[in-house]
Amino acid sequence: MIVDTQHSTVEANQEALRRLTSARPVLVDVAAAGEVVPGMTPRTILTSGAPLAWPDYTGGQRRAIVSAALYEGLASDVQDAKARLDREDITVRSTQEHGCIGSVAGIYTASMPVLVVRDEEHGNTAYCNLYEGKSRYRLNYGAYNEEVRQGLRWLQEVQGPLLADALKITGPLDLKPLLARALRLGDELHSRNTAGTLLLQRTLTEALFDVGRDEARESEVRQMLEFFSSNDYTFLRVSMAAAKATADAAHGVAGSSVVTGMAINCREFAIRVSGCGDTWFRGAFPTLEGRFFDGFTEADAEWIGGESCVTETVGLGGFAQACAPTLMDYQGGSYQTMRDNNLAMYDITVGEHPDFLIPAFDFRGAPVGIDVFKVVETGITPVIDGGLAGREGGQIGAGVLRTRPDVFAEAASHLRHLQALSPSDHTPGGHHDHV
Amino acid sequence: MIVDTQHSTVEANQEALRRLTSARPVLVDVAAAGEVVPGMTPRTILTSGAPLAWPDYTGGQRRAIVSAALYEGLASDVQDAKARLDREDITVRSTQEHGCIGSVAGIYTASMPVLVVRDEEHGNTAYCNLYEGKSRYRLNYGAYNEEVRQGLRWLQEVQGPLLADALKITGPLDLKPLLARALRLGDELHSRNTAGTLLLQRTLTEALFDVGRDEARESEVRQMLEFFSSNDYTFLRVSMAAAKATADAAHGVAGSSVVTGMAINCREFAIRVSGCGDTWFRGAFPTLEGRFFDGFTEADAEWIGGESCVTETVGLGGFAQACAPTLMDYQGGSYQTMRDNNLAMYDITVGEHPDFLIPAFDFRGAPVGIDVFKVVETGITPVIDGGLAGREGGQIGAGVLRTRPDVFAEAASHLRHLQALSPSDHTPGGHHDHV
Repeated sequence: MIVDTQHSTVEANQEALRRLTSARPVLVDVAAAGEVVPGMTPRTILTSGAPLAWPDYTGGQRRAIVSAALYEGLASDVQDAKARLDREDITVRSTQEHGCIGSVAGIYTASMPVLVVRDEEHGNTAYCNLYEGKSRYRLNYGAYNEEVRQGLRWLQEVQGPLLADALKITGPLDLKPLLARALRLGDELHSRNTAGTLLLQRTLTEALFDVGRDEARESEVRQMLEFFSSNDYTFLRVSMAAAKATADAAHGVAGSSVVTGMAINCREFAIRVSGCGDTWFRGAFPTLEGRFFDGFTEADAEWIGGESCVTETVGLGGFAQACAPTLMDYQGGSYQTMRDNNLAMYDITVGEHPDFLIPAFDFRGAPVGIDVFKVVETGITPVIDGGLAGREGGQIGAGVLRTRPDVFAEAASHLRHLQALSPSDHTPGGHHDHV
Repeated sequence: MIVDTQHSTVEANQEALRRLTSARPVLVDVAAAGEVVPGMTPRTILTSGAPLAWPDYTGGQRRAIVSAALYEGLASDVQDAKARLDREDITVRSTQEHGCIGSVAGIYTASMPVLVVRDEEHGNTAYCNLYEGKSRYRLNYGAYNEEVRQGLRWLQEVQGPLLADALKITGPLDLKPLLARALRLGDELHSRNTAGTLLLQRTLTEALFDVGRDEARESEVRQMLEFFSSNDYTFLRVSMAAAKATADAAHGVAGSSVVTGMAINCREFAIRVSGCGDTWFRGAFPTLEGRFFDGFTEADAEWIGGESCVTETVGLGGFAQACAPTLMDYQGGSYQTMRDNNLAMYDITVGEHPDFLIPAFDFRGAPVGIDVFKVVETGITPVIDGGLAGREGGQIGAGVLRTRPDVFAEAASHLRHLQALSPSDHTPGGHHDHV
């Protein structure tokens, strides 16, 4: 019997594409991670990337986890924190295991407020914590000091509750129109979120105005307006949560070779694939074409985690780079290169997004749904717009990350194996009924 | 004696360019035209375009002037208004004669609020009245009915005073950084002003919040927030006032062949030139590559005035078209054509703007300072992004207007004549001392 695996993959990928493009992410709440994230406990710390055991976390990501234990009051000092982590009195888990998505190290503790984004089409929910602000030193970049601590506390005590109260007034925010509109205003919604931030602020302004009529909240509202004005990256967390909800909706289509997750931890770049269950295919870090700030060089860079590339997974970021020429100011390059990078992504994706349109391509839909088979065939790998962390903590640059082919080849091979095993049963992991 | 006119023109144009690019337009106030516009009287109506005598105004522009008389309470009905205009009991003047700038018909009466923009570098002041909102029917598009009247009244009673009060709190707004930033966010600041509107709203939000703490003003502030959210064109009037202040600063440089005004009335397209004094060179209307709304055709279009092309005069609009691919959605075309149009403008301008940068051209400065000699030499004429008015009033489309060469040729010829007359005296109009 000849197995038409190609045909079943095409159908499965169309289903994954349908899910990716029909997802309707809605911002429904902002609440403490401990209250809403499934499986989150008071002693859990979430961090970016395919899961690792605690002892395997190194460098800035390890430092960020330890700092999180201090921030959350789970340990008295660094030594105590490490000891508690060693004996699993404090648990480290991957964001990915809890429907969360991490920017750089992506640190979550139970008290941190998270954006709650539900995909109204498919019913799944994703979470992303809040942006710490434009300071180069942030916990998610592996830095921790009194300023970082106070910033996190402000998110917890002021920004989180304010956003939650504003959302109670506005009702749930349908995010897809906001995302689509931001693309028309020069964002690509990974490394450029200026328009998204402006649109979000506008959307919430009247509600903030309402909250601020309470004398006790007035100064908080002013602080929030100031935060919006000073932090063009604010919207990234919304974009990430929306993308995570969308990618999760497309995960688990038997036979599909569409990538539904890309994630970095301190040891590896990894992807997961719709038809391959919970397996993370792990490989080498991307190569880097970056622009370093203030005299830093590539030698100063360190991989400390990162999952904001979930945006690329759903047709944003590098896959909508041509929307955002201004991004060159941040990460270098030329607009022709950006256009070329963006165009190349059509060769490795299964479709074009009906709502995420690229004005500079005469409103062609963004390429969406990375197909590991197409990556293997063409040798073209996904591009990611990203921020760069330094060895000493903090952000030291930004640039285009070019993923390497190894993980895509491994995933393709795995998927072919699954398909050969189960021609008529497309459930990944169905290891029976050989042909 | 051989007169080196070329040399003196180059120097004069460098001075005009310096003025165009060093102008620092600042929004200082919003006040009734009758209170701040020089020469404005309670019985004056200002309208767009090179000056005409009242009997020469026809069609929609004439209708708009008559409607303005009714709006201002200067006449009891249309017949009375016409009679009073005929006997100059009501005076019609060109906006240009009063430091004002008109969108489409550009109608000003004494009670209408105007944005007051001062060029802090050169000390001159320009004025632009307020955007009526997105309804297709607006006085400046030659439409007048109860809805239009109420909209104008709201501008006068609510928006104008609110903006004035907000500006008292914020202090004068430096507009050049706002304009430059909007270009990075996908505006070209003539036919696309979405980013500018977002940025202006953000800039005023906290001040509006302050004003709204007064119970009596609360609902007005909510109306204003709603107006911002519903009207992406709001910022155009700011952009026009800034451009007018800038163009005026560059006017009057003896020997300069740089265009300092482009204006349309119901009879002609006209330009003025820095070195040619108050002369308007009048010629044929631009040709039109437009997109018509809802079944309208070119046959339905009517020229009823327009001076928003002052933005093109200072390096915005069609001269920064490549910033705004999303504009295609409004006025048709392809992005390649927009880029080509924009690039061609470098061939007819005297410099590149140091602050108005075009991200899609790798941050090349926008072409600025239209040189009538270069237009004549190359045969390339300025492109203008514009809205299109219908014969029955209202906006019926949008598109790229391509100016015709006649007025540029006439201006060039006039300037050569002046230069030949006054090789060592660059004051236009110095008709003495033949060589």
